[in-house]
Amino acid sequence: MTASGFLAEIAGVGRDPKRGGYSRHAFDAPEHDLREWFVERALGLGLDVETDRNGNIWAWWGPPGRNAVVTGSHLDSVPGGGAFDGPLGVVSGLSAVEALQTNGFRPRRPLAVVVFAEEEGGRFGVPCLGSRLLTGTIDADKARGLRDADGVTFAEAAGKAGVDPARMGRDTERLDRIGQFLELHVEQGRGLIDLGAPVAVGSTVIAHGRWRFSFAGQGNHAGATLLADRADPMLPAAATVTAVRRLAAQVPDARATVGRLVPTPGGTNVIASTVDLWLDARVPGQGTPGLVAEISRAASEAAQEEGCRVEVTRESYSGDVVFDDALRRDLGGWLGGPPELPTGAGHDAAILAGFVPAGMLYVRNPTGISHSPEEFAEAGDVEAGAAALATVLERLAR
Amino acid sequence: MTASGFLAEIAGVGRDPKRGGYSRHAFDAPEHDLREWFVERALGLGLDVETDRNGNIWAWWGPPGRNAVVTGSHLDSVPGGGAFDGPLGVVSGLSAVEALQTNGFRPRRPLAVVVFAEEEGGRFGVPCLGSRLLTGTIDADKARGLRDADGVTFAEAAGKAGVDPARMGRDTERLDRIGQFLELHVEQGRGLIDLGAPVAVGSTVIAHGRWRFSFAGQGNHAGATLLADRADPMLPAAATVTAVRRLAAQVPDARATVGRLVPTPGGTNVIASTVDLWLDARVPGQGTPGLVAEISRAASEAAQEEGCRVEVTRESYSGDVVFDDALRRDLGGWLGGPPELPTGAGHDAAILAGFVPAGMLYVRNPTGISHSPEEFAEAGDVEAGAAALATVLERLAR
Repeated sequence: MTASGFLAEIAGVGRDPKRGGYSRHAFDAPEHDLREWFVERALGLGLDVETDRNGNIWAWWGPPGRNAVVTGSHLDSVPGGGAFDGPLGVVSGLSAVEALQTNGFRPRRPLAVVVFAEEEGGRFGVPCLGSRLLTGTIDADKARGLRDADGVTFAEAAGKAGVDPARMGRDTERLDRIGQFLELHVEQGRGLIDLGAPVAVGSTVIAHGRWRFSFAGQGNHAGATLLADRADPMLPAAATVTAVRRLAAQVPDARATVGRLVPTPGGTNVIASTVDLWLDARVPGQGTPGLVAEISRAASEAAQEEGCRVEVTRESYSGDVVFDDALRRDLGGWLGGPPELPTGAGHDAAILAGFVPAGMLYVRNPTGISHSPEEFAEAGDVEAGAAALATVLERLAR
Repeated sequence: MTASGFLAEIAGVGRDPKRGGYSRHAFDAPEHDLREWFVERALGLGLDVETDRNGNIWAWWGPPGRNAVVTGSHLDSVPGGGAFDGPLGVVSGLSAVEALQTNGFRPRRPLAVVVFAEEEGGRFGVPCLGSRLLTGTIDADKARGLRDADGVTFAEAAGKAGVDPARMGRDTERLDRIGQFLELHVEQGRGLIDLGAPVAVGSTVIAHGRWRFSFAGQGNHAGATLLADRADPMLPAAATVTAVRRLAAQVPDARATVGRLVPTPGGTNVIASTVDLWLDARVPGQGTPGLVAEISRAASEAAQEEGCRVEVTRESYSGDVVFDDALRRDLGGWLGGPPELPTGAGHDAAILAGFVPAGMLYVRNPTGISHSPEEFAEAGDVEAGAAALATVLERLAR
């Protein structure tokens, strides 16, 4: 089946009527349905399927073993996300395997399509949780204790999905099997539009992380409390949103965003008692922690001015990643010299790049918009991506 | 039973483990339980109970009829609210009736204890919805179409609770029965602490209203989108929060609050596509609309600067209210000259004041904090309030 055909099969799963697009979060009902769908389709191609200790699913063509060629991505989305971010890499892997099978290709190296768990961090806050656990770049106890908005822990949600939380953590056996890892992904920017090409090879991923700012003040009645008597945490939270943009704009190529902000209790006629906001900050090179420190200082000053307190917690951080030089050279040669693109978006491939040779392919996005219902890729570009992936898998595995 | 005794009976209903305090919203499970509890207790006192066309519950001592003495309040809360705001007036009404019965008092006028629906607007956005519908100060079609955060309409929720939405609207028959209306309420400020008195008579309610500001921009990826390419609605929303405080501080005795702010989709690594915030604004006299107009201008400028749009919708507005002069004089005389207090908080009594002689009694709040789990009243003050209410009801109904 074509990659577009596979995408069409899951087009109805996890639609978000309120936000538009899709809300498919780690181990929730839609993501569970997508996992089952993936297992069925992989079995249909004669692949052997296993779910690892951290909730990642591996579909093996040939017996699992060392020096394997592995491709894949994720099936979860941000809240109200698009149809391509994640699933495109998974369906392109399935489609490439099917095309190679149809052509009579027999891989000499083990080959696998993998689905990573909780790539977006949309439910438990930490992105690339499945690949972080696999590689041991997050402590298993910390991961088990992460909570979603309803207070459910990652351990509880994974347990319900049949993943034993006690066995979570660095999985040396599976990690050591990976000879090369290659992730295909829809582009999350306008690079390929400007270059007029359908597919690019990934060069670098900008350092990025997430920080939680918790402002605490005094909840009270919005009508009966004079302005002078208030300690309203919404004020320093708003000042921090403004400071994020102002301070990031002074750092070349920095991106800093507040996309999530939650006042508690959140009533119209109630001065909030606490406001939590999340900062997503990304600066090429070593600049991210410095920018966050400046933002934290601004938040602290604004909190003090209103008689509030603020606590800043780092939820995740990954440094700059440069994808494997040899693999990039090979990809470029086999695909006829496609452009190379850096990205500000994080990926499981960037986590794995610290441990195994890893690379990425990007497929053109005609609007450049991602993490939105408007995210898109033309069918022709989708098939060009899957074909490029098939070419590369064949070259690597033969 | 004492008012405190009644309060103790419902102390376990609708606790909010996440926010603290209580979340009891119009026609949800906890508020439904409280309504059933009220009906049982009223029947236990030999009162006749009817639910009117707008979901308000009336418990009658003696046959319903014109020139009735009516007291009451509400059982719903803000999200994470206190135990007293609303229920104190209801239980004090029950306790006062029981005390008068025990003393052998026989009212010569009809007497009722009423529970109004959706006073806080915590679920459907418009406060005092039950009394607004009763008096026709909100259009029935507009009320029926109000939606909660899950998209459920007021008509649907009321229908499930046994209230026929088709019959909602101005209820002249019931309104004409009210000779005087008196609401007892916990004070939502520090007036009685400073005056050293347990009970006060209400003088005025400051004009107040609610406005929704909907900012729209372009949802996108937080890592891959350069700052210069963004139209992030969180920025003008934050600028508006700051402007609310700055502009309100220039208007004597104004109160203006943003306690509710919702970015959509609300992911950490997602630039929001829309941000909704709600402004609660209250200025004595005619100043509220002017303040809101200034805030709207600031919001519009901030939106434009970020390439976003903003739409401002008035959800409710009530002008200044002065409680009935004759009733205030009588209350003062019968209660031995208690202090009189203005308030910035809205109440059903203030809605009814436009149609029938209405008044209020406030009970001391030792912290002045309300709409918060910390809201409180000492047991001695609670009983002083119920005793004052019994005195007044006896004087009015004899």
